[in-house]
Amino acid sequence: MISVPGEPSGPLSAAWRGCVGTGRLDLALRRDYQDSLALLQRDIGFRYLRGHGLLSDGVGIHRPYEWQGARRTHHAFTYLDQVLDACLGLGIRPFLELGFMPGGLASGEKTVFWWKGNVTPPADEKEWTDLVRATLTHLMDRYGADEVRTWPVEVWNEPDLPDFWPGADEPAYHRLYEATAYAVKEVDAGLQVGGPALSPGADGWMGRFAEFAERRDVPVDFVSRHAYSSGPAQHVPFGAHQTLAPASDLLDQFAEPRRTLEGTRLEGRPVHITEFNSSYRPDNQVHDTAFHAAYLAPVVTAGGDHADSYSYWTFSDVFEESGIPTALFHGGFGLLTHRQLRKPTYHLYAFMARMGEQQLARGDDHLVTRHADGRVTVLAWAPVDPTGETPGPDRHTLRLSLPVGTAPGGTAFVRRSSVDEERGNAYTAWRHMGSPRSPRPGQLDILHDASEPARAHHRLPIEDGRTDLGLTLARHEITLVELTPVHDETPPWWDERRLLGRESP
Amino acid sequence: MISVPGEPSGPLSAAWRGCVGTGRLDLALRRDYQDSLALLQRDIGFRYLRGHGLLSDGVGIHRPYEWQGARRTHHAFTYLDQVLDACLGLGIRPFLELGFMPGGLASGEKTVFWWKGNVTPPADEKEWTDLVRATLTHLMDRYGADEVRTWPVEVWNEPDLPDFWPGADEPAYHRLYEATAYAVKEVDAGLQVGGPALSPGADGWMGRFAEFAERRDVPVDFVSRHAYSSGPAQHVPFGAHQTLAPASDLLDQFAEPRRTLEGTRLEGRPVHITEFNSSYRPDNQVHDTAFHAAYLAPVVTAGGDHADSYSYWTFSDVFEESGIPTALFHGGFGLLTHRQLRKPTYHLYAFMARMGEQQLARGDDHLVTRHADGRVTVLAWAPVDPTGETPGPDRHTLRLSLPVGTAPGGTAFVRRSSVDEERGNAYTAWRHMGSPRSPRPGQLDILHDASEPARAHHRLPIEDGRTDLGLTLARHEITLVELTPVHDETPPWWDERRLLGRESP
Amino acid sequence: MISVPGEPSGPLSAAWRGCVGTGRLDLALRRDYQDSLALLQRDIGFRYLRGHGLLSDGVGIHRPYEWQGARRTHHAFTYLDQVLDACLGLGIRPFLELGFMPGGLASGEKTVFWWKGNVTPPADEKEWTDLVRATLTHLMDRYGADEVRTWPVEVWNEPDLPDFWPGADEPAYHRLYEATAYAVKEVDAGLQVGGPALSPGADGWMGRFAEFAERRDVPVDFVSRHAYSSGPAQHVPFGAHQTLAPASDLLDQFAEPRRTLEGTRLEGRPVHITEFNSSYRPDNQVHDTAFHAAYLAPVVTAGGDHADSYSYWTFSDVFEESGIPTALFHGGFGLLTHRQLRKPTYHLYAFMARMGEQQLARGDDHLVTRHADGRVTVLAWAPVDPTGETPGPDRHTLRLSLPVGTAPGGTAFVRRSSVDEERGNAYTAWRHMGSPRSPRPGQLDILHDASEPARAHHRLPIEDGRTDLGLTLARHEITLVELTPVHDETPPWWDERRLLGRESP
Amino acid sequence: MISVPGEPSGPLSAAWRGCVGTGRLDLALRRDYQDSLALLQRDIGFRYLRGHGLLSDGVGIHRPYEWQGARRTHHAFTYLDQVLDACLGLGIRPFLELGFMPGGLASGEKTVFWWKGNVTPPADEKEWTDLVRATLTHLMDRYGADEVRTWPVEVWNEPDLPDFWPGADEPAYHRLYEATAYAVKEVDAGLQVGGPALSPGADGWMGRFAEFAERRDVPVDFVSRHAYSSGPAQHVPFGAHQTLAPASDLLDQFAEPRRTLEGTRLEGRPVHITEFNSSYRPDNQVHDTAFHAAYLAPVVTAGGDHADSYSYWTFSDVFEESGIPTALFHGGFGLLTHRQLRKPTYHLYAFMARMGEQQLARGDDHLVTRHADGRVTVLAWAPVDPTGETPGPDRHTLRLSLPVGTAPGGTAFVRRSSVDEERGNAYTAWRHMGSPRSPRPGQLDILHDASEPARAHHRLPIEDGRTDLGLTLARHEITLVELTPVHDETPPWWDERRLLGRESP
Repeated sequence: MISVPGEPSGPLSAAWRGCVGTGRLDLALRRDYQDSLALLQRDIGFRYLRGHGLLSDGVGIHRPYEWQGARRTHHAFTYLDQVLDACLGLGIRPFLELGFMPGGLASGEKTVFWWKGNVTPPADEKEWTDLVRATLTHLMDRYGADEVRTWPVEVWNEPDLPDFWPGADEPAYHRLYEATAYAVKEVDAGLQVGGPALSPGADGWMGRFAEFAERRDVPVDFVSRHAYSSGPAQHVPFGAHQTLAPASDLLDQFAEPRRTLEGTRLEGRPVHITEFNSSYRPDNQVHDTAFHAAYLAPVVTAGGDHADSYSYWTFSDVFEESGIPTALFHGGFGLLTHRQLRKPTYHLYAFMARMGEQQLARGDDHLVTRHADGRVTVLAWAPVDPTGETPGPDRHTLRLSLPVGTAPGGTAFVRRSSVDEERGNAYTAWRHMGSPRSPRPGQLDILHDASEPARAHHRLPIEDGRTDLGLTLARHEITLVELTPVHDETPPWWDERRLLGRESP
Repeated sequence: MISVPGEPSGPLSAAWRGCVGTGRLDLALRRDYQDSLALLQRDIGFRYLRGHGLLSDGVGIHRPYEWQGARRTHHAFTYLDQVLDACLGLGIRPFLELGFMPGGLASGEKTVFWWKGNVTPPADEKEWTDLVRATLTHLMDRYGADEVRTWPVEVWNEPDLPDFWPGADEPAYHRLYEATAYAVKEVDAGLQVGGPALSPGADGWMGRFAEFAERRDVPVDFVSRHAYSSGPAQHVPFGAHQTLAPASDLLDQFAEPRRTLEGTRLEGRPVHITEFNSSYRPDNQVHDTAFHAAYLAPVVTAGGDHADSYSYWTFSDVFEESGIPTALFHGGFGLLTHRQLRKPTYHLYAFMARMGEQQLARGDDHLVTRHADGRVTVLAWAPVDPTGETPGPDRHTLRLSLPVGTAPGGTAFVRRSSVDEERGNAYTAWRHMGSPRSPRPGQLDILHDASEPARAHHRLPIEDGRTDLGLTLARHEITLVELTPVHDETPPWWDERRLLGRESP
Repeated sequence: MISVPGEPSGPLSAAWRGCVGTGRLDLALRRDYQDSLALLQRDIGFRYLRGHGLLSDGVGIHRPYEWQGARRTHHAFTYLDQVLDACLGLGIRPFLELGFMPGGLASGEKTVFWWKGNVTPPADEKEWTDLVRATLTHLMDRYGADEVRTWPVEVWNEPDLPDFWPGADEPAYHRLYEATAYAVKEVDAGLQVGGPALSPGADGWMGRFAEFAERRDVPVDFVSRHAYSSGPAQHVPFGAHQTLAPASDLLDQFAEPRRTLEGTRLEGRPVHITEFNSSYRPDNQVHDTAFHAAYLAPVVTAGGDHADSYSYWTFSDVFEESGIPTALFHGGFGLLTHRQLRKPTYHLYAFMARMGEQQLARGDDHLVTRHADGRVTVLAWAPVDPTGETPGPDRHTLRLSLPVGTAPGGTAFVRRSSVDEERGNAYTAWRHMGSPRSPRPGQLDILHDASEPARAHHRLPIEDGRTDLGLTLARHEITLVELTPVHDETPPWWDERRLLGRESP
Repeated sequence: MISVPGEPSGPLSAAWRGCVGTGRLDLALRRDYQDSLALLQRDIGFRYLRGHGLLSDGVGIHRPYEWQGARRTHHAFTYLDQVLDACLGLGIRPFLELGFMPGGLASGEKTVFWWKGNVTPPADEKEWTDLVRATLTHLMDRYGADEVRTWPVEVWNEPDLPDFWPGADEPAYHRLYEATAYAVKEVDAGLQVGGPALSPGADGWMGRFAEFAERRDVPVDFVSRHAYSSGPAQHVPFGAHQTLAPASDLLDQFAEPRRTLEGTRLEGRPVHITEFNSSYRPDNQVHDTAFHAAYLAPVVTAGGDHADSYSYWTFSDVFEESGIPTALFHGGFGLLTHRQLRKPTYHLYAFMARMGEQQLARGDDHLVTRHADGRVTVLAWAPVDPTGETPGPDRHTLRLSLPVGTAPGGTAFVRRSSVDEERGNAYTAWRHMGSPRSPRPGQLDILHDASEPARAHHRLPIEDGRTDLGLTLARHEITLVELTPVHDETPPWWDERRLLGRESP
């Protein structure tokens, strides 16, 4: 029995909802995407949204043309405005990633992804900084300076990987960063610029970025990196399997920037994990499972110890980096599938969104919080075996003594919401259904029902302001327990036992 | 083990969805009412809606005035049109009940209900038949003759009760019926007129109505009566307890008109049970329970044997016959509470709406149907003890051999939806919560979640086109089981066991 | 030519949108009402909503019952919570009027209105103050103290009229006020209580109310009265005609409380005109006309000089004081008819809602404001003849020199929105249509189109930061002119004259 | 004065609403697209939707992969199902165009459009016919045979142009057609297949297609071609100007297939003009003008004389053939701009959708119809000068004697809706506004208001069942006049002159 203290250890960190990832920005024009984002914001409420492709040709900002015999450039914001109007209208702000390279400004042909994002450096640095300035100036003008100053501006993505930056040329990235950061600050000194958006394997880059920033006195308002925990891929058609490192490995990655920057001029700058997930592949079906939610629970609950935000990559399977998905469940990164089925990891976040402002306790398998109005909320999860050698324990129990306060009647109303391999699990229902690649409307309705967490309600006695809560979790279960002291309004004349079908007293 | 035949016994009767009851018609102007009706029609799809008050002052049709020194009457359809536009827009048609008496046309002061419906005969028969003619003429003009000819027109309500007709004066009712029926037919011979809308205790009235109709050669296109099965009320403030007769008693009442009219000129006329329920009181909490759904299951599934429609009284707790409800759950007739919580009996109807077109089998605890596309659907229910002497059995089992057809993989996808005293039961959650009379938004959200049936999914093997389905039902459970042969689209390379967290082969 | 100053005379008073009237509170349960309120709040955005009937039986709060042999009282908030949830959800707060008397607490039978509001004093003062305390305590509990402290609490309605208070018994009203005000303050000292909600003809009551308040040291946080400007009614069936006093008469009535209270202890208390309109009758078709909008324009634009709010009586024709309306246009008070047709006076308010924060000028026929972003907005109106002896001038012109600021291209974009006897006038279209009492859907669509103000757009040159605006108004026109300096983004290569169909240069 | 006959000349041809064009199919995943389509279907109600790209990589059907050492092909319908679910849900069916070539099946690199549709023949004919069969089989399975048999299947697009088919190789197209047509019929003999989807300049192709079909006995259920009337482009950046042929030239093109096929085996087959517009360029601002609506009015009203459908290319500016638009108004084909501004040509179609079922008269500047309920509707338009040499007449008058039937009061209610260079014209308002490339929300609201047709209402006398209607049209006006006999419900006591502000009798 763990006795949860009555005094909070402090406010629950909001870093978990700081940011979420998205497929390339022009996908935000899609209805499925916007419907998914609306659901996400209703149930979870992320603060920022980060994705690639802001400057790529699919958004269509950089538009060279000829007139009066000369090459000129027009900056067109037709789609960017539509994307941002939609996001802001749904209560989420952009975490701007400056990249990739417009075709008309690229110095080479190299592209990344099925959608062919050009990843080469600008052919003309001035035209690049003009593009950066024009874009930010437009945003300040349209959305207001106060608003845009809250939007972080990150320079490029994973320049330490040759797939994203030719030759992973570090000095070239530093040059790009410097030119870009100054262009950003020219527009408005209050804009927040940062980088270097490193991949997990970028040994030494962060330290050298700090040295470079100090040496050249370049503005760096925040630093960023990514975190993934999967091993090498074993391929099958349209899919892959991978082993995972323990979840703590992700927390180690979250912690790396603060460790590295200690003692440098960048010490104390906000650290944003601008991408994280278990597998870095959008075709690993682990993303669709209850295992995944239970695996990430210790990361999502504790990440705020190490970073200012950590952005789950990504909120929706509307995502085309490795092509158009060939089946409804295909191992995409999304918290939501196409057509808005909620995966177990979605529920992990939705459960987090119901936690209170004050943290009372946190352990290997639980987080306890209190709301301002006194409600106590428990998130608990089953342990997992990430090696895949065992399926993990089929039952897990924990017992908590909770400080729920007093109620006239001495009882607490308890609601439990559960997601595991069977419950709140559309993937399992879909498997039972025969894995229909593109389910029909009637099947989709059933899958939507299946994605709803199982609910149970009961009452527990309160003694001396405390309630004992015993929980048994199924394999890979995540569970949310909400306790509210009961103010009983049952009238004095009411005798439930007189209702037909009730057990006698 | 019951072996369900592969050949249907015939089409499933649609009488169960033929009609549903409503509080007085002007309540249809309310938002809660319309939201509830929209939900009802989405999930169930009743054909007709019947309620009191069409001609009462709350709808405001009959409007006497003075002009040029004479009394005149204007007929105003401001509200009636709004009500019918809303209903028809939601796909439900009116079953018109002509009553009660407008204040300006009444011969007395006697009223019924909190909302004071005047139940006295018309002071002037011509002004009454003018009113009837004007109303139907207006409806034919606005909605079209073809449409309005499908709307039954019922004369008055329960004239055999002094509360609804002074002295339960039978000859006076016959006179009213005759004048009214002729007025209806004057408007259009194709309109369907009927009565006498008797209460359950109307001994002998039905037979004498047939004699009167024959003797006077009066048009009678259908006959109607009501059915209730509750005993005397034991009162508590704002509530009542009653015993119930066995459910078969309701079926006996449904069957009475055909029995009585055998051999009369009215033999073969459509029989409409224009009201039925267990208790006839809107303050008996039995209406809110899972017991109630299980009690009515044999009635709703078998009623079509005896009548052409049987109208559950009523679809919503937006209802004011005994005053404004003092708590969210107050024993109202509604399938839905205020603010659209679905009661167990709502789910009984929603489950019926998922049954197939062909009936394969029906028993004391089950109904089995098949859809045109081959899906087999089972509705099963636990037995209840209506005396209240025992709570009824806490477990009930049945086993069915179902003809589900063939599937390449030899398995059927099975979805089970359950409602019982704990699951799909907002009333029980509300009791745990402390019976909050007017729940706050956060509490309402929890209650909405709690009203969702529990779902489970699995697969069963098919052998020789048959699947064995064993069901264990909890106390007062109603359950819907839907079986679909699986067409497995799992690609040949997929090995689910390679997913992390799966049990080894 | 009127030269409008470049410097504002001060902020535009927000008193015009401070409050709006409504039919009895339980009408807020209706869909038409809520749809109308949603439209109103989208286009106008009133702060408070005031209506009768909070404590009447239609809301159902006061519920006496017998238990254990004694009479007791339950307070039920089923409907009140639904009403307030809806209003607050649409962004409008209640201005609470405590009245009328629940049937179970009334000392007599006297009622007012078709819906029979009982207007007699409480039979038991303690039961009355219990009711007041219970209601406010419930509201504080459900909506929070900070919120409810912003809701004014007004004691009764027009006690100076025998129709609303037997014998217009002034001492009895003072006693009721005193008991009620103390009950309110017992719940929370921060609640704002006031009265005496006088009718226009209440000679001397306001002064005596101040004396009484001083003498008895009774809390009075604000004072209230009503203002109407119509003469005696000439009746026709379901309607009436009246003459009107000049609009300035309404402003005089608005000004009366401050005048009267000068030098008393109540000097400086907020003054709320808790009802105003031209005619006090809900069956005077003047409410439906463009004449009415033009008549009230000088009142709505200038009322803030005299009072802290003035509440147009009422926002919607969903209103039943004299019975259920017998035709779509029937002279109701509403800014909106049933089914949301916008009347000209609705547009007067919607135009006000587009005015800027700073007032630049106000005259007999115009109001000029500036928005924070520099846009200049003009509301202008034609003069009317309220005597009915002449139709008023058929043309009215004004000319303004407006300080619109500078624009690179030296031009301003001008949008003009017009409502008069033909344009933006569903009433006139409805008359042409043959005055259909309950229009069909196709007719309603046409009337909705007809209620849209006429729009015209052009450009005007700016010289020295000023634009000359000449306006010609049709009979009874109200017009909104919005001027925005043009930032021309037309590309340099664009020559509009090359478009087919353009006039040559 | 033209006397319109009282007897209809026949039913109004429905060919005008038979089909409408769209940008490539995967654009249907966008929210703007779906919102636009919903508006279109509400106001107009097209039957079919035709666009390119069904088989291109953006829809992602053809998916080669390696497994067990061999190349295989998977057919994925993830996006196609989403697109068709959306379209069918909005009440519009697909007119299937089989093309272009998936990258994995292409025999070359040649692409068309900014979005790079591969236009080369299949590298493997069997893999192509497999793709066609798999796609149609999937559609039959998902949507039902009865439904899919109503969807025409057109083979490729404009094979007579080298841009769409390498070398405009006619024998190669015939081979493709033959293989494809047989593949379609193998799936279901009831499917309708056709071609050859010719461009306007395809001299001789249609005749040779008929010869080929006869010679090879190939199934051809319908024939198709396109029609455009613009001359060569004069370019400006992101735009072009062109002259136009007279509108009758389009009708000549519509008529060509029937002329050509006379006497061939294809005589009498349905003729579908599967694309038409004035300019074939998506950057010619003529598409945005009132001129354009008036220019096309004689085509849209008379096209049914010559073809079974003629599909306006396209319904929305969500279209990317020449890149992402750089301004809201950019000369796109759309009836609607991005964000749903209605262009004048949209109103031409919306006016057509309000015409009656029976045609009474048609002339150079008018079309007159009657509805089943007796309403008479007139569409009239001003003449235009397509040469651009003159702006066209600034006024145009016509006078019609209309057979409106009888009404008790002898008058008709007349509603006129007008669109011209000023009214119902968001483009003109946008120009006045300074041509903001990406308007802000407030500006968009104003533009939406500006796109609403101007409305006027009055009454005209009926004599001997006829009304004289005199119309004066502004430059480039299109106008809809709707006449309804008035059934006057004004009560006998009502004297409008007693309303304040009315002119004396």
